[in-house]
Amino acid sequence: MNENPHIVSAFDKDLRQIENLVVTMGGLVEQQLEQAAEVIISRDLELADQLIASDDEVDKLEIEIDSLVVRIIALRQPKAQDLRSVLAALKVAADLERIGDYAKNLAKRTHVLAQVPIVGDSAKSVRRMCKMVRQMVKDVLDAYLTRDEAAANEVWLRDEEVDQIHNNLFRALLTYMLEDPRNITPCMHLLFIAKNVERMGDHTTSIAEQIQFLVSGEMPEEDRPKGDVTSTTLVEAKAR
Amino acid sequence: MNENPHIVSAFDKDLRQIENLVVTMGGLVEQQLEQAAEVIISRDLELADQLIASDDEVDKLEIEIDSLVVRIIALRQPKAQDLRSVLAALKVAADLERIGDYAKNLAKRTHVLAQVPIVGDSAKSVRRMCKMVRQMVKDVLDAYLTRDEAAANEVWLRDEEVDQIHNNLFRALLTYMLEDPRNITPCMHLLFIAKNVERMGDHTTSIAEQIQFLVSGEMPEEDRPKGDVTSTTLVEAKAR
Repeated sequence: MNENPHIVSAFDKDLRQIENLVVTMGGLVEQQLEQAAEVIISRDLELADQLIASDDEVDKLEIEIDSLVVRIIALRQPKAQDLRSVLAALKVAADLERIGDYAKNLAKRTHVLAQVPIVGDSAKSVRRMCKMVRQMVKDVLDAYLTRDEAAANEVWLRDEEVDQIHNNLFRALLTYMLEDPRNITPCMHLLFIAKNVERMGDHTTSIAEQIQFLVSGEMPEEDRPKGDVTSTTLVEAKAR
Repeated sequence: MNENPHIVSAFDKDLRQIENLVVTMGGLVEQQLEQAAEVIISRDLELADQLIASDDEVDKLEIEIDSLVVRIIALRQPKAQDLRSVLAALKVAADLERIGDYAKNLAKRTHVLAQVPIVGDSAKSVRRMCKMVRQMVKDVLDAYLTRDEAAANEVWLRDEEVDQIHNNLFRALLTYMLEDPRNITPCMHLLFIAKNVERMGDHTTSIAEQIQFLVSGEMPEEDRPKGDVTSTTLVEAKAR
């Protein structure tokens, strides 16, 4: 325990400032995911460009959080739990930055998708994945602010559903490609988009693990039930 | 300047310990990339499984570096440049962990590739990318140890070549898929592998940026010449 209550409360104020920046960053990323879910269906290139442009703001917030963390460690010299809380912000911000980056990549691919035919219902599955990850990001940041380990664990487990949609989509897209070569280019881009959204889910679980670590001092013991099996999926070409 | 030379030297010793762990981690990742370059051609599943197994060691080293960083900040309360050096180790370790993860994913996909026909020379291009990134990881870690900003910058620029091979490979693989549906599954996995190796190159440039920041106190001003244009590449299906 620190014996000077003034120093304690100054640190708490600093930590709140960092956490507010993390939550602001999270809000922007949630908005990117919201827009991603929309452009994947509407192919609205103006909205896609808005999404791409907003990623600069996300990147700037990460740099701001990084500098603030350095300044606060130097100024307050926090130890133990306080130090871990400050360092956790670095990791959470890095995960949010990556999620934003994947959203930006999805928006870029929309420019190609807008030029090619729509294939089946795949875009709807991608939208469903985006919406699930958006909700996971929201819930995990609530859990971060309230240090709610159970809520973080719930998000951590929920990622399996995202993986499952991704698995089904992967097989469906490969099948479309095998059926008709005109499907290959659009399905290729949808495959990469779906993989990116699946990776966004993984980064959300990393944030959940940081929260579990902050609260309990330990990383989750068991491995997360990993649902993504697409790396080892083999879909055979049938004779036409 | 710290006025107590004993405390300075104790911190330097700590920092060297962290940097040694980072370099050990880097050595393992270089070995993973060496093995990746081999299995992509040989499809040697035993070697692929060795690569996959070694990733646990890489993950453990990251956790070890993270704990050591926390302990050293709490114990030594470093400021300014010293604090930045310690925090840079966190970031470099996180990038190395991701590179290892991508190598593991490549090895997993080898199990599928081993069951499907070899398509053209694509695997050779992937091998070339793996070897280039392996050399970049080696060079960037040398630059990290010696705080050589020019060498770091050289690695940072070299990533454009990896991107260029990736672009050509992307178009070639799409063309193979359009030519014959039996190529779709193997080319799909090669596309994901190639994308992963391209991402490894990006993580190597992130390490280079950390070094530039450590030495000059500033992140690179200009954007890196990004060579990866595959997100916006459209390859049309021709009539058969």
